Amino acid sequence: MRSTVGWQVDGSSSALRRTPLKRRDLRPDDLAVRVDYCGVCHSDLHAVAAQGGAGSRPLVPGHEFTGVVTETGPAVTRFTAGDSVAVGNIVDSCGVCAMCRAGQENFCHSLPTLTYGGTDRHDGSTTLGGYSREYVVRDRFAHTLPAALDPAAAAPLLCAGITVWEPLHALGVGPGTRVAVAGLGGLGHLAVKIAVALGADTSVISRSPDKIGDARRLGARGLIVSTDPEQMAAARDRFDVVVDTISAPHDLGPYLRLVALDGTLSHLGHLGPVTVETLDLLVGRRKLSSAGSGGRPATAAMLDFCAQHGITADVEVLPSARVNEALGRLRRNDVRYRFVLDMSDLDLATIE
Amino acid sequence: MRSTVGWQVDGSSSALRRTPLKRRDLRPDDLAVRVDYCGVCHSDLHAVAAQGGAGSRPLVPGHEFTGVVTETGPAVTRFTAGDSVAVGNIVDSCGVCAMCRAGQENFCHSLPTLTYGGTDRHDGSTTLGGYSREYVVRDRFAHTLPAALDPAAAAPLLCAGITVWEPLHALGVGPGTRVAVAGLGGLGHLAVKIAVALGADTSVISRSPDKIGDARRLGARGLIVSTDPEQMAAARDRFDVVVDTISAPHDLGPYLRLVALDGTLSHLGHLGPVTVETLDLLVGRRKLSSAGSGGRPATAAMLDFCAQHGITADVEVLPSARVNEALGRLRRNDVRYRFVLDMSDLDLATIE
Repeated sequence: MRSTVGWQVDGSSSALRRTPLKRRDLRPDDLAVRVDYCGVCHSDLHAVAAQGGAGSRPLVPGHEFTGVVTETGPAVTRFTAGDSVAVGNIVDSCGVCAMCRAGQENFCHSLPTLTYGGTDRHDGSTTLGGYSREYVVRDRFAHTLPAALDPAAAAPLLCAGITVWEPLHALGVGPGTRVAVAGLGGLGHLAVKIAVALGADTSVISRSPDKIGDARRLGARGLIVSTDPEQMAAARDRFDVVVDTISAPHDLGPYLRLVALDGTLSHLGHLGPVTVETLDLLVGRRKLSSAGSGGRPATAAMLDFCAQHGITADVEVLPSARVNEALGRLRRNDVRYRFVLDMSDLDLATIE
Repeated sequence: MRSTVGWQVDGSSSALRRTPLKRRDLRPDDLAVRVDYCGVCHSDLHAVAAQGGAGSRPLVPGHEFTGVVTETGPAVTRFTAGDSVAVGNIVDSCGVCAMCRAGQENFCHSLPTLTYGGTDRHDGSTTLGGYSREYVVRDRFAHTLPAALDPAAAAPLLCAGITVWEPLHALGVGPGTRVAVAGLGGLGHLAVKIAVALGADTSVISRSPDKIGDARRLGARGLIVSTDPEQMAAARDRFDVVVDTISAPHDLGPYLRLVALDGTLSHLGHLGPVTVETLDLLVGRRKLSSAGSGGRPATAAMLDFCAQHGITADVEVLPSARVNEALGRLRRNDVRYRFVLDMSDLDLATIE
C-alpha cells in the first residue's frame, strides 16, 4: 500500500482532520496522481452532514481535482509521469453495459464507482476522495488537463463544469438558443460562461438583484429577480432551456413556466422526489429533465471546449488546512463562486 | 337563437337526458354544423362526475365530432353548406398571444374556449358540447373532414387523435424511432396506429397480456406486461419515446425507466400533480413531458396524415339515445376502443 495524507471526517465532530491515508498499490492500468487542487462541491457538504454513527465508512471528500501523474502502471499508455491530469466524480464503471458502451459511464447499469464513498470494484474497499495529496485512479477515468487551463481554477470543471455541460450539450444549446440559468453559484456561474461561449442568448434568474453586475460580467444579457412576480410573469414562455442550479428543495413550477414551447427545464443534482403540476408541463409541451455528472467523452469534450474559450471557474483558493472554514462558508453561500483547496500544504509537517 | 336538441346532464341524477337546447344566431364568421357523430371521451366522464350542486352551469358533453355544414355567416370563406367538417375540444382563442400566433391555440395565454363547459368570449354563455344535433362554431375552429375518412370512425381523431399526434410529432417520431405506448384504450390504440404509420418500431405496454392480439393487429411489434417485473426490467432504457395513455393516477417511475438515453416519457391528459424520483430523470438524461389536445395547424396535419394512411379509431357506434349506457361501459373500460354516438336519432320524436 502507498502512504499519503488527507482530510478525513472525524466521526465525533463532523470536522475534517488531517489524517494519514493508504492508497492501493498500482494495478497495471492505474495512475498515481499528486493532487494539487481540489474543488469544494455542495455534494461534499451533504456527505459530511450524512456521515457518522457506528460502523460508518471512512469519509475523505473531494471529487473535482487536478494534479500531476507521478507514477503509472505497466499497462498505461495514455499518460506518463509529469502529465497534468484532472479527475471527476467517477473513477470506474463496468465498461460493458449499454450506457458504458455509449460513453455514459455515469449512468452505468451496475452503477459507476464514485470517487469517494464508493466501493472499489476489485478489492471492495471504500474510495477516499481528493481532499488528499495523492490519489490512485484507473487511467480511463483520468483526463488530460489542457495546458491552457489554470490547474486551480480548472478543478471545478470536473464536477460543476461537466454537470452544466451535459444538459447544455444534450439539449443542443447553440447560437440563438435562449437559455436561463437559475441560481448564480458554483454551478450557475459556469453554466452562464459555457452557455455564452456556445453562443446562447443567456439570462440569469436569481433572488439577489445585486448579482446583476456579476451576471453581466459573465456574459449574460440580464437578470430576472425570482422573487418579483411581475418579472417572472413577463418572462413566461421565454426560454428554450432553463438550467436550474438551485440546490435547496424548491417549487419547480415558477421555473417551468419560463420554458418556451417544446423547451426543457433541466434541474441539476439529486433533489430526491420532485412534484410538478401536469398543466405546467402540458401547456407548451414543456419537458422536465435532470442532470448530474457526465461520461468520459463528454468530460473530454468539455475540457477541450473550456480550453478553447478560456473558461474556468471563478475560485477562491485556500490552503487545504482551511477546509473546515471553506465548508462552513459554502454552507452559508459565502463564496463567489467555488472554493478550491491547495493541497501543497499537506507536504508540510503535521499542522494540527 | 337557434333551436336544437341534445343530451344534457340532469343535475339530480347525473344521467343525461334529451333536452331542447339553444344555439346562438350565426355571427359573421360562424358555421352551423349538423352533428352526425360524436365520440365519447374519458373527459366526458370526469365532467359528468364533477357536475352538480346548486348554481352549476348546464353540461352537454362532447368535444370530438363530425358533421355537415348547414349554414354559414357572411364572412365565412373556407366553408360552404354541405361541407363535411370536424370539431375538436377547443372552439376559440384570443388569436393574438404568442401561443396563438405559433398555431398552438390550445395553449392560448388567456385560455382557449372549450367546446363544452367553456365560456364564450363574446356573450359569456356556457358552451354546450357535441352530444347534440347542431353546433355553432367559429369557422377557424372547424376542420375539413377528408373524404377518405369515415365520419363516424374519424370523430375520435378530433380529441384522442390529436392528443396522441402532438407528442409523437413534436418528439420527432419517425422511421427507426423506438416507441412504446402504455395503455391500449381510446388514446393508446390511436397512438399505436399513428406511431406505426410514422414508421416507428412500436410496442405496447399493458396490464392485460390478452391484448397481444390487438397490439399485433394494430401493427405493434409486441406487448410488455406491465405487471411482470422481469419483462419491465428487460425493457429498461429501450424506448426513445414512451407515450403513457393511462388515465388513472399511477406511478410514472416504471415507465420512465423504460426510456432510453435522451428519450422522453410523454404522459397524456390532466393527471394533476405528478411526482417523479430525480434519479429516474437524471439517469439517462430522460425527459418528462405531458400533452393534451393540439393547435389548429397540427389538427389539420393530423387529419391529412390519417387520410393518407387510412387511420381512424376502432369504434363502437351507438344511437345517441344509448349515451348513458356508453358512459357506464366506458367507466368500466368495456369498449374496444372508442364509443361514438350517432346523433341522427335526435331527429326523431321525443325518445324518453
